[in-house]
Amino acid sequence: MSLSGYVRTIELTPPALGNNTADAQRLEQVLKKELNTKNVHIPWHLVGDLSARLRQWHWQVKAVLFKDRRSFTVVDLLDPQDSGPVMGAAVDIGTTRMVIALMDLETGETLGETGFDNPQADIGPDVLTRILHAKTPAGREALKRLAVDALNQHLARLCKENNRTPDRVFLVAGAGNTAMTHLFAGLPAFGIIQEPYIPCTNILDTLDAADLGLAVHPRGQVFLFPNIGSYFGGDLLAGILAADLDQKDQPCIMVDVGTNAEIVLGNKDWLMACAGAAGPALESGVSQMGMTAKPGVIDRVRVDPETRDLIIHTIDDEPAVGICGSGMIDLAAALFVSGRIDIRGKLVTEACGDRLTNENDIPAFDLVAAKDSGTGRAIRLSQVDLNSLTSAKAAMYTILEVIVSQTAGLSFSDLARFYVAGTFGSFINPNSAITIGMLPDIPLDRFQVLGNTSLKGAEQVLTDPAAFDRVMAIRETITYIELNVNQGFMNLFSGAKFYPHTDTSRFPSVKV
Amino acid sequence: MSLSGYVRTIELTPPALGNNTADAQRLEQVLKKELNTKNVHIPWHLVGDLSARLRQWHWQVKAVLFKDRRSFTVVDLLDPQDSGPVMGAAVDIGTTRMVIALMDLETGETLGETGFDNPQADIGPDVLTRILHAKTPAGREALKRLAVDALNQHLARLCKENNRTPDRVFLVAGAGNTAMTHLFAGLPAFGIIQEPYIPCTNILDTLDAADLGLAVHPRGQVFLFPNIGSYFGGDLLAGILAADLDQKDQPCIMVDVGTNAEIVLGNKDWLMACAGAAGPALESGVSQMGMTAKPGVIDRVRVDPETRDLIIHTIDDEPAVGICGSGMIDLAAALFVSGRIDIRGKLVTEACGDRLTNENDIPAFDLVAAKDSGTGRAIRLSQVDLNSLTSAKAAMYTILEVIVSQTAGLSFSDLARFYVAGTFGSFINPNSAITIGMLPDIPLDRFQVLGNTSLKGAEQVLTDPAAFDRVMAIRETITYIELNVNQGFMNLFSGAKFYPHTDTSRFPSVKV
Repeated sequence: MSLSGYVRTIELTPPALGNNTADAQRLEQVLKKELNTKNVHIPWHLVGDLSARLRQWHWQVKAVLFKDRRSFTVVDLLDPQDSGPVMGAAVDIGTTRMVIALMDLETGETLGETGFDNPQADIGPDVLTRILHAKTPAGREALKRLAVDALNQHLARLCKENNRTPDRVFLVAGAGNTAMTHLFAGLPAFGIIQEPYIPCTNILDTLDAADLGLAVHPRGQVFLFPNIGSYFGGDLLAGILAADLDQKDQPCIMVDVGTNAEIVLGNKDWLMACAGAAGPALESGVSQMGMTAKPGVIDRVRVDPETRDLIIHTIDDEPAVGICGSGMIDLAAALFVSGRIDIRGKLVTEACGDRLTNENDIPAFDLVAAKDSGTGRAIRLSQVDLNSLTSAKAAMYTILEVIVSQTAGLSFSDLARFYVAGTFGSFINPNSAITIGMLPDIPLDRFQVLGNTSLKGAEQVLTDPAAFDRVMAIRETITYIELNVNQGFMNLFSGAKFYPHTDTSRFPSVKV
Repeated sequence: MSLSGYVRTIELTPPALGNNTADAQRLEQVLKKELNTKNVHIPWHLVGDLSARLRQWHWQVKAVLFKDRRSFTVVDLLDPQDSGPVMGAAVDIGTTRMVIALMDLETGETLGETGFDNPQADIGPDVLTRILHAKTPAGREALKRLAVDALNQHLARLCKENNRTPDRVFLVAGAGNTAMTHLFAGLPAFGIIQEPYIPCTNILDTLDAADLGLAVHPRGQVFLFPNIGSYFGGDLLAGILAADLDQKDQPCIMVDVGTNAEIVLGNKDWLMACAGAAGPALESGVSQMGMTAKPGVIDRVRVDPETRDLIIHTIDDEPAVGICGSGMIDLAAALFVSGRIDIRGKLVTEACGDRLTNENDIPAFDLVAAKDSGTGRAIRLSQVDLNSLTSAKAAMYTILEVIVSQTAGLSFSDLARFYVAGTFGSFINPNSAITIGMLPDIPLDRFQVLGNTSLKGAEQVLTDPAAFDRVMAIRETITYIELNVNQGFMNLFSGAKFYPHTDTSRFPSVKV
């Protein structure tokens, strides 16, 4: 990684009579050759000291570089004897959480990672409220400051924990969705939510960290992942990069299950994507049903093969306080295989026994009794909750079917890899997701959990100059599919609302 | 000029469903098409207001652009209804004089021009003293400030005279020799005069005016002509551009007679140049003998065809106070054709009559008697002065012969045009220069005086985006010829020290 990265220690031929290229062009020529590029930009602020430094360093120099759409740029020139760290910060700019990874740019190593709540939530927990707040310049500035200040503070702490200082952070790469990227950069974002849904910019060219107010190296450079459009953001591009989807021989798919389901399908020759709310189904989707992970949250549920009882697992084995999204999928699968819900996803009175209860005339299932829970109340799943899950899983399967079969003309078995991205996705048990008919019934070994692909993509951009061009190329080549919730979609959706599906031949591995 | 220049009023297609390119990329695409280029850079500071402005201006915008080696850059975006001037400033950064031309970038018109003494002369009248002064950062800063402050002050005055303000100056282009360019930009310049003669930089990429301290538009951009090397500067590149030497079908030559003689020869296929001190001959060269133009200075001398008397002309017809360089060449020609000097350039006692005098045992010629002069002293030309002129004219002819005949393998008659550049050159009478054997004996109509080509080249860069690429291409293609003062040179030089030459067949038109 180091040899092909943004930090290069290079040696120049000292000038002589007959070799009298000027100092700046001498450096430029060597860097062009080293980087195999036509354009290397040495910014003005480095020119004044260049002659003295090159001589003082005996014509050796450690160059910290970065890229924009036009050229490589020299961010700083260091004494090759300088043993101080040369670092970068990768940032996942999430709506709810922000995560920083501190990188050693010379080794490509991640030195440490830290996550924190996005303080823009003080203005509004959801993106919509924030976008409305950003209608005024003062609102934009406030939102930007909240995110940037928090980033500065947590980055400083992360550096300190690693016995380093933020002024040695030369490069920052951040990935977020389109709205979050706009709000992080202090840009107006209202066009994103108003027809015809026009972002201010889809490509934020490499920026001066100082222009954003980032407390890193004074001449530090910032790359924010570009967007494809209002509903397809830089986080997804980072994901494609992290999954190497643009370099696959065989078609692969990546699914990021967040507030929306975002899906990319393709290989080295083509990429297509769809995202956004697929009708009301996803709006009350999987991720909104559960709690986020914390001690006592039920994250895994299975059926005891002997007793047919439900066996729950809570985080840190604490008394149960709730259930998270992945636990919900496990639970639905367990309820289904144990006959406690039927193929329509309805609670079966006889099978549920004394666990069945009733709330406001709506049937509900007590997963944990009040006396055993950590809250003093039963951990209860109502038929309404179940219906939401059913709609969400059906929407997910339908979207997958639309893009894989109807749009790309493939069958699910053609998918060489099924990548699951995002924090939520990391915890999904593919087996359970197949059981309820949320994910297609393909061999389990094709599923691969990628974790935080926004962060991983950002890390890649900091350590591999080729990644920059790949991101721009992906942006150009990807086809964005508008999901039309038309009659055809609704027909598919209706079949997918069954467990696992009206057409059980699609799920041969699911045995009830 | 306007249609192909840096100010473009463009119309964008308003976004719609199905045409949802982001605002910044929408503008970028139109500009790329308009400018027929791959890269247009919209700087960060323009992105935040872009969405509101485009809508407010009904998807029309007046873009002020500029270029660097990587792309076009948007300097500012204006309301197409904005009727304020969009201006540029072309600057000749001369060692002695600086000249500013204020341009209307929309019409390509020059609004006004002003010249002033380069205040760096307070530190040292010659470049060498200034370069030594620039060895310390404080010295560099002081020199830069002197030039920049004077430029700011005179530009403000020039704007005021034209009822305009400097904040409407968006672009600045400056041309100077290598040392002057370094000193104007506050760069260390010592490498230029110390073996192996290495400038700090030969290409100053397009700069922010603010970085130089120029009081123009806050985001104004500055182009300083690149250099070829320590002894071949941006002023010459500007000259080549102004003379269109890089676009000629037939070989042409351009000679800039300043402290040194600088010569460029070539056409659209090739260019070669030589410059610098050609031995001691030019050091006490033509330009140093005379005074600069002011009232009372003798600028023209001719022989009365009847009486054989010398007839002088002074600037503003004031009583004579001295003689300028062009007057000297006229005088030498007149002395020669009237037989007052011989073919060796020696004063002929008999022919000079009572004008011949003697100073410290050195013969001298009184051009104007003490009683007729404006100084109360005789305007006197000594044999020593004449010897200097002889050496200088011989050096000039020899350099021309070396580059045209010996290097390019041409004869003088192959030159379709003989351009004379520089303020000094503007006043030379080609007929006199041929008479003394300083310039080759080619038809007079091939000589063309170009005036201040540094300024003209800078004007061209401000109004014609193609000029930028031409300058960079000229820089790459030009061959720089080192003039070796070897035995061969000295042999040619010896012949050229005669009037007009030992080989009179070279000067058929000179009749004595």
